[in-house]
Amino acid sequence: MSLANRSLTAIDDLSNEEIEAIFFLADEMSDSIREQTEVCRGKLMASLFFEPSTRTRLSFEAAMHRLGGNVISAVDIGATSLAKGESIADMAKVIGSYADIIVIRHPWEGAARVVADYAGVPVINAGDGSHEHPTQTLCDLYTLKKERKTIKGLTIALWGDLKHGRTIHSLAYALARFGATIHFRPGPGLELPEHVIKKLTTEYTGRLEKYDKLDGALKGKLLPLDAIYITPSVPHQLANIPDVSVQVELKTGLDALYVTRLQKERFSTTAEGKELKDSYPVVDKKLLEEKEFKETIVMHPLPRVDELAHEIDADPRSMYFKQAERGVPARMALVALVLGDRKVDIAKPKAPPTPKIDYPVYKRDSGVRCHNPSCVSTQATETKYIKPEFKIVDLKPLTLRCIYCEHEVHPPYIASLEWHEGKIDTKKYHSADSRWVEKIRPDNLIIFDSEKEAQAQGFKPSHYATGKE
Amino acid sequence: MSLANRSLTAIDDLSNEEIEAIFFLADEMSDSIREQTEVCRGKLMASLFFEPSTRTRLSFEAAMHRLGGNVISAVDIGATSLAKGESIADMAKVIGSYADIIVIRHPWEGAARVVADYAGVPVINAGDGSHEHPTQTLCDLYTLKKERKTIKGLTIALWGDLKHGRTIHSLAYALARFGATIHFRPGPGLELPEHVIKKLTTEYTGRLEKYDKLDGALKGKLLPLDAIYITPSVPHQLANIPDVSVQVELKTGLDALYVTRLQKERFSTTAEGKELKDSYPVVDKKLLEEKEFKETIVMHPLPRVDELAHEIDADPRSMYFKQAERGVPARMALVALVLGDRKVDIAKPKAPPTPKIDYPVYKRDSGVRCHNPSCVSTQATETKYIKPEFKIVDLKPLTLRCIYCEHEVHPPYIASLEWHEGKIDTKKYHSADSRWVEKIRPDNLIIFDSEKEAQAQGFKPSHYATGKE
Amino acid sequence: MSLANRSLTAIDDLSNEEIEAIFFLADEMSDSIREQTEVCRGKLMASLFFEPSTRTRLSFEAAMHRLGGNVISAVDIGATSLAKGESIADMAKVIGSYADIIVIRHPWEGAARVVADYAGVPVINAGDGSHEHPTQTLCDLYTLKKERKTIKGLTIALWGDLKHGRTIHSLAYALARFGATIHFRPGPGLELPEHVIKKLTTEYTGRLEKYDKLDGALKGKLLPLDAIYITPSVPHQLANIPDVSVQVELKTGLDALYVTRLQKERFSTTAEGKELKDSYPVVDKKLLEEKEFKETIVMHPLPRVDELAHEIDADPRSMYFKQAERGVPARMALVALVLGDRKVDIAKPKAPPTPKIDYPVYKRDSGVRCHNPSCVSTQATETKYIKPEFKIVDLKPLTLRCIYCEHEVHPPYIASLEWHEGKIDTKKYHSADSRWVEKIRPDNLIIFDSEKEAQAQGFKPSHYATGKE
Repeated sequence: MSLANRSLTAIDDLSNEEIEAIFFLADEMSDSIREQTEVCRGKLMASLFFEPSTRTRLSFEAAMHRLGGNVISAVDIGATSLAKGESIADMAKVIGSYADIIVIRHPWEGAARVVADYAGVPVINAGDGSHEHPTQTLCDLYTLKKERKTIKGLTIALWGDLKHGRTIHSLAYALARFGATIHFRPGPGLELPEHVIKKLTTEYTGRLEKYDKLDGALKGKLLPLDAIYITPSVPHQLANIPDVSVQVELKTGLDALYVTRLQKERFSTTAEGKELKDSYPVVDKKLLEEKEFKETIVMHPLPRVDELAHEIDADPRSMYFKQAERGVPARMALVALVLGDRKVDIAKPKAPPTPKIDYPVYKRDSGVRCHNPSCVSTQATETKYIKPEFKIVDLKPLTLRCIYCEHEVHPPYIASLEWHEGKIDTKKYHSADSRWVEKIRPDNLIIFDSEKEAQAQGFKPSHYATGKE
Repeated sequence: MSLANRSLTAIDDLSNEEIEAIFFLADEMSDSIREQTEVCRGKLMASLFFEPSTRTRLSFEAAMHRLGGNVISAVDIGATSLAKGESIADMAKVIGSYADIIVIRHPWEGAARVVADYAGVPVINAGDGSHEHPTQTLCDLYTLKKERKTIKGLTIALWGDLKHGRTIHSLAYALARFGATIHFRPGPGLELPEHVIKKLTTEYTGRLEKYDKLDGALKGKLLPLDAIYITPSVPHQLANIPDVSVQVELKTGLDALYVTRLQKERFSTTAEGKELKDSYPVVDKKLLEEKEFKETIVMHPLPRVDELAHEIDADPRSMYFKQAERGVPARMALVALVLGDRKVDIAKPKAPPTPKIDYPVYKRDSGVRCHNPSCVSTQATETKYIKPEFKIVDLKPLTLRCIYCEHEVHPPYIASLEWHEGKIDTKKYHSADSRWVEKIRPDNLIIFDSEKEAQAQGFKPSHYATGKE
Repeated sequence: MSLANRSLTAIDDLSNEEIEAIFFLADEMSDSIREQTEVCRGKLMASLFFEPSTRTRLSFEAAMHRLGGNVISAVDIGATSLAKGESIADMAKVIGSYADIIVIRHPWEGAARVVADYAGVPVINAGDGSHEHPTQTLCDLYTLKKERKTIKGLTIALWGDLKHGRTIHSLAYALARFGATIHFRPGPGLELPEHVIKKLTTEYTGRLEKYDKLDGALKGKLLPLDAIYITPSVPHQLANIPDVSVQVELKTGLDALYVTRLQKERFSTTAEGKELKDSYPVVDKKLLEEKEFKETIVMHPLPRVDELAHEIDADPRSMYFKQAERGVPARMALVALVLGDRKVDIAKPKAPPTPKIDYPVYKRDSGVRCHNPSCVSTQATETKYIKPEFKIVDLKPLTLRCIYCEHEVHPPYIASLEWHEGKIDTKKYHSADSRWVEKIRPDNLIIFDSEKEAQAQGFKPSHYATGKE
């Protein structure tokens, strides 16, 4: 399989082997970064940033220039005609007819996917709201690979704000896919959200061991271990001894400490953010003297605020500036590959890959909509042409995952297309937690957001509409 | 005549043959768009957008990059030092000394002309207020040419908001020049302004046949025909039968339907805009089933809002995305030609061209000024060096057309330089609608905005000052 | 000494001979400006403008493109993530890993120096608050050199607002270094600040002769001579006759008249600015008819507002547009040299250069901080890693000059490290204007901003703490 003409809207768009292939080329680019100026000669990148992000934008644009390509750039275009009443599908078609590749950052979750659907050229997601930022994950993995040769079998601690921030969630999934062990060490109240844990354990099929907060570990500003994720590819002793002392585990030492900043801007009140900020841990010289960090590389997606002390910048374990630097060759490799200007061999999977679950799809014009107000599929300008579409990821309780933003909804009512065809008077709807949910074939399933809507479509409540059988 | 070193501030800056030459080169560019990277190698475009317009800007910048040139770009520069108290003539001189070509969008009408006067390099108008947007017209004509081989003899309907929006007026003039028949099908209250009609019939010497609104034609959302413009180059049967049934005419079918969006931003009140929006017609699948649209290509300058239904995007008659796409090769051709980096043969006019009317010029330091508050010639920073200048386009009533913004003024008082030279006591001013207006030689004409001004310059009212002879 | 890998944060970073070498290359660039496209092929400039400045930015970006290099550009980034809580040192490191050279404008004084300290690539200061704008000075000198062959021995009048505006102060120092005589002709209340005069006379070792305002010279709008700066390299008759008539001196004529606009934005009240604006002189045709201006070139850093009449634009003495134009080859030369893509011979100083004064350095973590609220060293995000650092430029009164913004502080209290080492009870602080200030070795000097601070560090007031001996 080739990467040419492919879009990257989520890190899962790439197989492990494709990611390895990108890193292989990134190494080559990195070794002779100023000698790549013929690779994309004559090609044009459109860099569209509907949200401010100077750092990511400049990294992409630098990558394109290093490849000898050119860039047309639109920054902070929320206020311009591109956004004013025009759908992003239209924008995608037009800009896709100007440029050979589109890099887009947009506040709506799933926006990059829609752009990719319509642009006619490869599209790279440079961040779509709180959804995905796949090239950040790519750069993170690349630094791990460079510093530790392989990702499989590494032990990596995710540290700080694990609740907010797309990069940390994407990274967790990617580490799971590559077979790393993950230590979650959140700040107080900043634990990994439930849906991320669920996805890690069901879709990436690993095991998550929760730990009680160990007061012993909370000396100074050291964040305690909250949970360990053990990938199925690394049969781990701990897996069988769930109550093993954390201290014992920690003695083996970490390969990497991935520090995140507090996503202040995600808090509803300034007061809440302020309090968390004050208790937010700082990784400093003293902390890095802990035995478990002896051989640990320190990573951070940047920008940092106060969570990394300047005093450790010169420490050879500090990798965050190298991480940023390596973003350029990593993005160069990606761009050159999707533009078809470079080709690399992509290995066949040696071991069977993590089995992808083939969830049934739910796609009907009416009935249920994504509830996420930031989802691209719910925006006034986009509903004209985007039909709601979900994966049915669970039946008990009935859980739909929006294919655009990946938020989940739990709709309360269902019906079957089959039973009632043509027979208006027998059109009945049931509670989604009644036993019928498992009896209706996915193909025939009709799902409603409310009783009102079910009735508007001509359905009447069944005995099971209230969920009491 | 060569296009090298020429500026394009209005579509009339180009002859029909020059436009055809640009299209000829655009075809060549279009066929090998990624192989033009040596054409403008080493040349530099300054892209100056004093108003937001991501789409047009990116199209120009893409064109320059495709030609192998470079771009320096300033976006939304209303707030910067370029605008702060500095005249646009100064800005033009400075940027003209940095770059080889300037593309400018500016809110002041006539601004591009002033920039062209001072820059010392070719200047392309990318929109100056409500005045002109000549490359949009160029792209529109180019799509007509590509799809229909020739523009002469086509029947094209202009549809929707014909009142606001420079593109529609410029397009009407250009279609007239090329010998097309134009059907005006405005939304209610959105008819073509009087001055456009006047210019079409006097300067482009065609005939305009008005139609009563035909209730019969107003089925569904179909806009009725308001008027047909018949060019002198296409002696048209209808010309002799002004009251012929519209339905009959329509049966011949349209070559193109040019749809426009409602220019909401031009309405003084939101309420007025809202009402018009609700009644604004939508071109959809159903409408295109009308017999008259069977072979009709659908065009639109984009961005669309709701006036084109997404459902027709896949219809082979829908040309609006191709129109946008073709903007790049069309602009490439234009840029390469004015930079002198490409040359093409420009045909000699086969038929005598539409005779350009040589209106007398009125240019005096004092007396009368343009009344258009958006005209470049009336701005505080520009009056220091721009002298008012008008064409005298009519005498009854006395009508001056500003050479910058092309708005017309009807000044109330006149005098003659000749009669009164040296004789202060006999310096008299007359009403502009007195018979004297035709007796004074244009060279000697002095025109006043008010009696106060005439008197301030030492003139006294004549018997004809009140217009009563 | 080579210019490769050098940063330019202040005009004094370059020796006279290095400046001459840049001009030598600029001449070559200027002669074949469109044939330099291979010089910086494959190199990347990051153009970072934290304050609006379209003109300067476009000049730099044009220069880079003319050299065949590429540009990544971030404009008006005050609001973006680059600034949000991140230190400029971090920003410098990251962008320095993307690009080969950084051009930066920033509102904080001394910011460019900090960026240069951390970027790892050459950094060019495109204006840091009211501190420096060295390439403007370079362009000014370049025009003088081009028009007058040499700068040494020229007589140049600085005209207008000499109080505000970094360019005028930097230019004065640079003219002094090159051995020009400077006539200061300020508008009323717009005289050169005291600290500039002091620096001119002490560090550039010239002599400043003040003149009483001569009512006779103030005919029309002609600004009177306020002072003449006579460089030591030009033993000047006037130096010995301080009360010589100004008119006599003026008869020799000026080589250049450097006009500045009123820096309206620097006034605290609009009223004050308004009043000064009304009395601000205009250089017009009539003024240039004065005998002393017969051979005088008229310069201006642009943008002008009203201080240069448009009517003199065509005058062969008017050089301001050429000045702007020459900014491009001058910047091309600078960029090519610091990138190491071009080399030129740099002459050895023929005459001994102006002796640089080697002031002792004061650098302690605590004690005294720069008082300039715009200084980079006092910003909340920067104090985490920037230690205060000063030159001790005077002892009577004790005067520290911040190495970042070059503002001076006069701290009130001092102590000695030596006397008190280990002996807490004898730790005494003294008034900075006591005789002790000269007795303490600079190495041992401790300086305090306040008594409170001295006491907080364990010092007690000495008999000399009050300054009364």
